[in-house]
Amino acid sequence: MTATHFAAAATGQWRITSITATAGATLPGAACLSIDGAPRDAAWTLRGTPSNLRYTTAQERTGLVARQEGIGRPQATRAALIPIAKSDTWWALAQDERRAIYMAGGHYAIGLDYLPAIARKLYHCRDLGGEPFDFLTWFEFAPEHEAAFDAMLVRLRAGAEWDYVTREVDIRLTRVA
Amino acid sequence: MTATHFAAAATGQWRITSITATAGATLPGAACLSIDGAPRDAAWTLRGTPSNLRYTTAQERTGLVARQEGIGRPQATRAALIPIAKSDTWWALAQDERRAIYMAGGHYAIGLDYLPAIARKLYHCRDLGGEPFDFLTWFEFAPEHEAAFDAMLVRLRAGAEWDYVTREVDIRLTRVA
Repeated sequence: MTATHFAAAATGQWRITSITATAGATLPGAACLSIDGAPRDAAWTLRGTPSNLRYTTAQERTGLVARQEGIGRPQATRAALIPIAKSDTWWALAQDERRAIYMAGGHYAIGLDYLPAIARKLYHCRDLGGEPFDFLTWFEFAPEHEAAFDAMLVRLRAGAEWDYVTREVDIRLTRVA
Repeated sequence: MTATHFAAAATGQWRITSITATAGATLPGAACLSIDGAPRDAAWTLRGTPSNLRYTTAQERTGLVARQEGIGRPQATRAALIPIAKSDTWWALAQDERRAIYMAGGHYAIGLDYLPAIARKLYHCRDLGGEPFDFLTWFEFAPEHEAAFDAMLVRLRAGAEWDYVTREVDIRLTRVA
Protein backbone atom coordinates (compact mmCIF):
# COMPACT_ATOMS: atom_id res chain seq x y z
CA MET A 1 0.00 0.00 0.00
CA THR A 2 1.36 3.42 -0.95
CA ALA A 3 0.24 6.57 0.82
CA THR A 4 -1.73 9.16 -1.16
CA HIS A 5 -0.52 12.75 -0.71
CA PHE A 6 -3.04 15.61 -0.49
CA ALA A 7 -1.23 18.96 -0.72
CA ALA A 8 -2.62 22.50 -0.47
CA ALA A 9 -0.80 24.53 -3.11
CA ALA A 10 -1.09 27.11 -5.90
CA THR A 11 -2.11 24.52 -8.47
CA GLY A 12 -3.84 21.15 -8.37
CA GLN A 13 -6.71 19.06 -9.70
CA TRP A 14 -9.21 20.68 -7.30
CA ARG A 15 -9.82 24.34 -6.35
CA ILE A 16 -10.29 24.91 -2.61
CA THR A 17 -13.52 26.83 -1.99
CA SER A 18 -13.55 26.75 1.82
CA ILE A 19 -11.71 25.36 4.82
CA THR A 20 -13.73 25.13 8.05
CA ALA A 21 -12.59 23.59 11.32
CA THR A 22 -15.47 21.96 13.18
CA ALA A 23 -13.23 20.67 16.02
CA GLY A 24 -9.71 21.75 16.98
CA ALA A 25 -7.31 23.82 14.89
CA THR A 26 -7.98 24.63 11.24
CA LEU A 27 -5.56 24.27 8.32
CA PRO A 28 -4.04 27.20 6.37
CA GLY A 29 -5.69 28.21 3.13
CA ALA A 30 -4.41 27.73 -0.40
CA ALA A 31 -5.77 28.04 -3.92
CA CYS A 32 -5.84 24.36 -4.83
CA LEU A 33 -5.54 20.81 -3.65
CA SER A 34 -2.97 18.70 -5.45
CA ILE A 35 -3.34 14.94 -5.18
CA ASP A 36 -0.04 13.08 -5.51
CA GLY A 37 1.42 16.05 -7.38
CA ALA A 38 4.27 16.80 -4.93
CA PRO A 39 4.10 20.62 -5.36
CA ARG A 40 7.10 22.52 -3.96
CA ASP A 41 5.03 25.35 -2.51
CA ALA A 42 2.63 23.25 -0.41
CA ALA A 43 1.04 25.05 2.56
CA TRP A 44 0.44 21.60 4.01
CA THR A 45 0.50 17.98 2.93
CA LEU A 46 -1.60 15.23 4.46
CA ARG A 47 -0.81 11.58 3.79
CA GLY A 48 -3.11 8.58 4.07
CA THR A 49 -3.25 4.96 2.94
CA PRO A 50 -6.32 3.18 1.55
CA SER A 51 -6.41 0.23 3.93
CA ASN A 52 -8.54 -2.78 4.81
CA LEU A 53 -12.04 -2.45 6.28
CA ARG A 54 -11.95 -1.89 10.04
CA TYR A 55 -15.59 -2.21 11.18
CA THR A 56 -17.69 -3.22 8.16
CA THR A 57 -19.01 -6.79 8.16
CA ALA A 58 -19.40 -8.91 5.03
CA GLN A 59 -23.18 -8.38 5.08
CA GLU A 60 -22.78 -4.61 5.43
CA ARG A 61 -20.24 -4.56 2.64
CA THR A 62 -22.76 -6.31 0.38
CA GLY A 63 -25.24 -3.55 1.20
CA LEU A 64 -22.69 -0.86 0.36
CA VAL A 65 -21.45 -2.47 -2.84
CA ALA A 66 -25.01 -2.82 -4.15
CA ARG A 67 -25.55 0.95 -3.90
CA GLN A 68 -22.26 2.82 -3.93
CA GLU A 69 -20.51 4.31 -6.96
CA GLY A 70 -16.82 4.95 -7.32
CA ILE A 71 -14.94 8.23 -7.28
CA GLY A 72 -14.13 9.93 -10.60
CA ARG A 73 -17.68 10.20 -12.01
CA PRO A 74 -17.80 13.06 -14.57
CA GLN A 75 -20.82 14.72 -12.90
CA ALA A 76 -19.11 14.68 -9.50
CA THR A 77 -17.48 18.10 -9.81
CA ARG A 78 -17.66 18.88 -6.10
CA ALA A 79 -15.64 17.18 -3.38
CA ALA A 80 -14.84 17.39 0.30
CA LEU A 81 -11.70 16.25 2.10
CA ILE A 82 -12.42 15.79 5.81
CA PRO A 83 -9.39 14.96 7.98
CA ILE A 84 -10.33 13.70 11.46
CA ALA A 85 -8.36 12.91 14.61
CA LYS A 86 -9.87 10.94 17.48
CA SER A 87 -8.88 10.95 21.14
CA ASP A 88 -6.53 8.58 22.96
CA THR A 89 -9.64 7.34 24.80
CA TRP A 90 -11.10 6.14 21.49
CA TRP A 91 -7.92 4.35 20.45
CA ALA A 92 -7.60 2.63 23.83
CA LEU A 93 -11.03 1.00 23.36
CA ALA A 94 -11.22 -2.66 22.29
CA GLN A 95 -12.48 -3.56 18.82
CA ASP A 96 -16.04 -4.44 19.96
CA GLU A 97 -16.32 -1.24 21.99
CA ARG A 98 -15.35 0.94 19.02
CA ARG A 99 -17.64 -1.02 16.70
CA ALA A 100 -20.58 -0.62 19.15
CA ILE A 101 -20.12 3.17 19.28
CA TYR A 102 -19.74 3.32 15.49
CA MET A 103 -23.03 1.44 15.01
CA ALA A 104 -24.95 3.22 17.84
CA GLY A 105 -24.13 6.56 16.22
CA GLY A 106 -25.69 5.27 12.99
CA HIS A 107 -22.51 5.78 10.98
CA TYR A 108 -23.15 2.86 8.61
CA ALA A 109 -26.90 3.47 8.21
CA ILE A 110 -26.49 7.22 7.68
CA GLY A 111 -23.86 6.72 5.01
CA LEU A 112 -26.11 4.24 3.21
CA ASP A 113 -28.88 6.86 3.03
CA TYR A 114 -26.74 9.05 0.76
CA LEU A 115 -25.70 6.39 -1.75
CA PRO A 116 -25.11 6.52 -4.62
CA ALA A 117 -25.13 10.36 -4.69
CA ILE A 118 -22.15 10.70 -2.33
CA ALA A 119 -19.08 8.65 -3.26
CA ARG A 120 -16.58 8.04 -0.48
CA LYS A 121 -13.01 6.84 -0.08
CA LEU A 122 -11.27 6.44 3.28
CA TYR A 123 -7.54 6.84 3.89
CA HIS A 124 -5.89 5.84 7.17
CA CYS A 125 -2.99 7.87 8.58
CA ARG A 126 -2.74 7.11 12.32
CA ASP A 127 -0.10 4.39 11.84
CA LEU A 128 2.04 6.43 9.43
CA GLY A 129 3.69 8.38 12.25
CA GLY A 130 3.90 12.16 12.43
CA GLU A 131 0.55 12.78 10.75
CA PRO A 132 -1.76 15.28 12.51
CA PHE A 133 -4.93 13.28 11.71
CA ASP A 134 -6.06 9.65 12.05
CA PHE A 135 -8.20 9.46 8.88
CA LEU A 136 -8.78 11.43 5.71
CA THR A 137 -12.17 10.88 4.12
CA TRP A 138 -12.66 11.93 0.51
CA PHE A 139 -16.20 12.55 -0.76
CA GLU A 140 -17.33 13.32 -4.33
CA PHE A 141 -20.76 14.46 -5.49
CA ALA A 142 -22.60 16.53 -8.09
CA PRO A 143 -23.29 20.20 -7.17
CA GLU A 144 -27.00 19.48 -6.63
CA HIS A 145 -26.13 16.98 -3.89
CA GLU A 146 -24.02 19.30 -1.74
CA ALA A 147 -27.02 20.17 0.49
CA ALA A 148 -27.64 16.46 1.08
CA PHE A 149 -23.96 16.04 1.89
CA ASP A 150 -24.21 18.85 4.46
CA ALA A 151 -27.24 17.16 6.01
CA MET A 152 -25.34 13.87 6.22
CA LEU A 153 -22.50 15.54 8.12
CA VAL A 154 -24.94 17.08 10.62
CA ARG A 155 -26.43 13.63 11.27
CA LEU A 156 -23.03 11.93 11.63
CA ARG A 157 -21.68 14.62 13.97
CA ALA A 158 -24.71 14.20 16.28
CA GLY A 159 -23.73 10.58 17.04
CA ALA A 160 -21.77 9.43 20.10
CA GLU A 161 -18.82 8.51 17.87
CA TRP A 162 -18.18 12.23 17.38
CA ASP A 163 -17.67 12.70 21.15
CA TYR A 164 -14.25 11.15 20.46
CA VAL A 165 -13.35 13.51 17.60
CA THR A 166 -10.65 15.93 18.76
CA ARG A 167 -9.96 17.62 15.42
CA GLU A 168 -11.99 17.83 12.22
CA VAL A 169 -11.52 20.12 9.23
CA ASP A 170 -13.97 20.33 6.34
CA ILE A 171 -12.23 21.26 3.06
CA ARG A 172 -14.60 21.90 0.16
CA LEU A 173 -13.45 21.63 -3.42
CA THR A 174 -14.50 22.18 -7.02
CA ARG A 175 -12.90 20.20 -9.80
CA VAL A 176 -10.58 22.27 -12.01
CA ALA A 177 -12.10 22.19 -15.50
CA MET B 1 2.37 7.00 16.90
CA THR B 2 6.01 6.73 15.87
CA ALA B 3 7.32 3.69 14.04
CA THR B 4 9.86 1.47 15.80
CA HIS B 5 12.87 0.51 13.67
CA PHE B 6 14.33 -3.01 13.87
CA ALA B 7 17.70 -3.13 12.06
CA ALA B 8 20.00 -6.09 11.44
CA ALA B 9 23.55 -4.76 11.95
CA ALA B 10 26.96 -5.38 13.48
CA THR B 11 25.89 -4.08 16.88
CA GLY B 12 22.63 -3.82 18.77
CA GLN B 13 20.79 -4.69 21.99
CA TRP B 14 20.14 -8.28 20.84
CA ARG B 15 22.42 -10.89 19.24
CA ILE B 16 20.83 -12.76 16.33
CA THR B 17 21.12 -16.53 16.89
CA SER B 18 19.08 -17.75 13.89
CA ILE B 19 16.95 -16.54 10.99
CA THR B 20 14.52 -19.10 9.56
CA ALA B 21 11.91 -18.46 6.87
CA THR B 22 8.80 -20.58 7.40
CA ALA B 23 6.97 -19.05 4.40
CA GLY B 24 8.36 -17.04 1.48
CA ALA B 25 11.80 -15.47 1.24
CA THR B 26 14.14 -15.25 4.22
CA LEU B 27 16.06 -12.16 5.40
CA PRO B 28 19.86 -11.77 5.23
CA GLY B 29 21.85 -12.56 8.34
CA ALA B 30 23.67 -10.13 10.62
CA ALA B 31 25.34 -10.26 14.03
CA CYS B 32 22.84 -8.20 15.96
CA LEU B 33 19.42 -6.58 16.01
CA SER B 34 19.41 -2.87 16.79
CA ILE B 35 16.12 -1.38 17.98
CA ASP B 36 15.75 2.31 17.13
CA GLY B 37 19.52 2.61 16.91
CA ALA B 38 19.70 3.73 13.24
CA PRO B 39 22.93 1.83 12.45
CA ARG B 40 24.62 2.86 9.18
CA ASP B 41 25.57 -0.69 8.19
CA ALA B 42 22.10 -2.24 8.46
CA ALA B 43 21.57 -5.37 6.32
CA TRP B 44 17.86 -4.63 6.58
CA THR B 45 15.52 -2.43 8.58
CA LEU B 46 11.89 -3.25 9.33
CA ARG B 47 9.52 -0.59 10.62
CA GLY B 48 6.28 -1.06 12.54
CA THR B 49 3.90 0.99 14.67
CA PRO B 50 2.31 -0.15 17.93
CA SER B 51 -1.33 0.47 17.04
CA ASN B 52 -4.83 -0.04 18.41
CA LEU B 53 -6.33 -3.50 18.94
CA ARG B 54 -7.79 -4.91 15.73
CA TYR B 55 -9.69 -8.06 16.82
CA THR B 56 -9.56 -8.28 20.62
CA THR B 57 -12.84 -7.58 22.43
CA ALA B 58 -13.03 -5.82 25.80
CA GLN B 59 -13.73 -9.15 27.54
CA GLU B 60 -10.76 -10.81 25.84
CA ARG B 61 -8.53 -7.90 26.75
CA THR B 62 -9.52 -8.33 30.40
CA GLY B 63 -8.44 -11.98 30.14
CA LEU B 64 -5.10 -10.97 28.64
CA VAL B 65 -4.39 -8.13 31.06
CA ALA B 66 -5.03 -10.42 34.05
CA ARG B 67 -2.29 -12.81 32.92
CA GLN B 68 0.20 -11.07 30.65
CA GLU B 69 3.46 -9.41 31.67
CA GLY B 70 5.26 -6.61 29.85
CA ILE B 71 8.41 -6.74 27.80
CA GLY B 72 11.73 -5.85 29.45
CA ARG B 73 11.64 -8.39 32.32
CA PRO B 74 15.24 -9.09 33.53
CA GLN B 75 14.84 -12.88 33.21
CA ALA B 76 13.55 -12.58 29.61
CA THR B 77 16.95 -12.85 27.94
CA ARG B 78 15.61 -14.60 24.84
CA ALA B 79 13.43 -13.00 22.17
CA ALA B 80 11.95 -13.65 18.76
CA LEU B 81 11.01 -11.14 16.09
CA ILE B 82 8.51 -12.69 13.65
CA PRO B 83 7.59 -10.52 10.64
CA ILE B 84 4.52 -11.79 8.76
CA ALA B 85 2.82 -10.82 5.49
CA LYS B 86 -0.69 -11.98 4.61
CA SER B 87 -2.27 -12.39 1.20
CA ASP B 88 -4.43 -9.90 -0.69
CA THR B 89 -7.28 -12.38 -0.15
CA TRP B 90 -6.97 -11.90 3.61
CA TRP B 91 -6.96 -8.11 3.36
CA ALA B 92 -9.99 -8.10 1.07
CA LEU B 93 -12.05 -9.89 3.74
CA ALA B 94 -14.50 -7.89 5.85
CA GLN B 95 -13.80 -7.34 9.55
CA ASP B 96 -16.14 -10.13 10.76
CA GLU B 97 -14.69 -12.60 8.26
CA ARG B 98 -11.11 -11.93 9.43
CA ARG B 99 -12.18 -12.06 13.09
CA ALA B 100 -13.95 -15.42 12.53
CA ILE B 101 -10.82 -16.98 10.98
CA TYR B 102 -8.66 -15.51 13.74
CA MET B 103 -10.89 -17.08 16.42
CA ALA B 104 -11.46 -20.42 14.59
CA GLY B 105 -7.69 -20.89 14.39
CA GLY B 106 -7.52 -20.49 18.17
CA HIS B 107 -5.16 -17.53 17.96
CA TYR B 108 -6.48 -15.84 21.11
CA ALA B 109 -6.87 -19.03 23.16
CA ILE B 110 -3.45 -20.40 22.17
CA GLY B 111 -1.72 -17.14 23.10
CA LEU B 112 -3.46 -17.18 26.49
CA ASP B 113 -2.06 -20.65 27.23
CA TYR B 114 1.49 -19.27 27.21
CA LEU B 115 0.96 -16.31 29.52
CA PRO B 116 2.71 -14.96 31.47
CA ALA B 117 5.84 -16.86 30.29
CA ILE B 118 5.77 -15.39 26.78
CA ALA B 119 5.49 -11.59 26.59
CA ARG B 120 4.31 -10.18 23.28
CA LYS B 121 4.15 -6.82 21.51
CA LEU B 122 2.60 -6.32 18.08
CA TYR B 123 3.69 -3.72 15.53
CA HIS B 124 1.67 -2.93 12.40
CA CYS B 125 3.42 -2.05 9.13
CA ARG B 126 0.96 -2.68 6.28
CA ASP B 127 -0.23 0.95 6.18
CA LEU B 128 3.28 2.44 6.32
CA GLY B 129 3.88 1.90 2.61
CA GLY B 130 6.89 0.14 1.14
CA GLU B 131 7.30 -2.34 4.00
CA PRO B 132 7.74 -6.01 3.00
CA PHE B 133 5.62 -7.31 5.91
CA ASP B 134 2.20 -6.53 7.39
CA PHE B 135 3.04 -7.14 11.06
CA LEU B 136 6.09 -7.56 13.24
CA THR B 137 5.50 -9.51 16.44
CA TRP B 138 8.06 -9.27 19.21
CA PHE B 139 8.19 -12.01 21.85
CA GLU B 140 10.32 -12.14 25.02
CA PHE B 141 10.84 -15.10 27.35
CA ALA B 142 13.32 -16.78 29.72
CA PRO B 143 15.61 -19.44 28.16
CA GLU B 144 13.67 -22.26 29.89
CA HIS B 145 10.49 -21.20 28.06
CA GLU B 146 11.88 -21.34 24.52
CA ALA B 147 10.55 -24.91 24.02
CA ALA B 148 7.07 -23.76 25.07
CA PHE B 149 7.39 -20.85 22.65
CA ASP B 150 8.26 -23.28 19.82
CA ALA B 151 5.23 -25.39 20.71
CA MET B 152 3.01 -22.29 20.63
CA LEU B 153 4.20 -21.44 17.11
CA VAL B 154 3.44 -24.98 15.89
CA ARG B 155 -0.11 -24.68 17.23
CA LEU B 156 -0.67 -21.22 15.75
CA ARG B 157 0.67 -22.22 12.33
CA ALA B 158 -1.74 -25.18 12.19
CA GLY B 159 -4.76 -22.84 12.24
CA ALA B 160 -6.69 -21.68 9.16
CA GLU B 161 -5.42 -18.12 9.72
CA TRP B 162 -1.98 -19.29 8.58
CA ASP B 163 -3.40 -20.34 5.17
CA TYR B 164 -3.30 -16.59 4.44
CA VAL B 165 0.34 -16.12 5.49
CA THR B 166 2.48 -15.51 2.40
CA ARG B 167 5.76 -14.72 4.16
CA GLU B 168 6.99 -15.42 7.68
CA VAL B 169 10.51 -15.20 9.07
CA ASP B 170 11.45 -16.34 12.58
CA ILE B 171 14.39 -14.37 13.98
CA ARG B 172 15.72 -15.65 17.32
CA LEU B 173 17.67 -13.42 19.64
CA THR B 174 19.67 -13.38 22.87
CA ARG B 175 19.97 -10.22 24.89
CA VAL B 176 23.44 -8.66 24.79
CA ALA B 177 24.74 -8.75 28.37
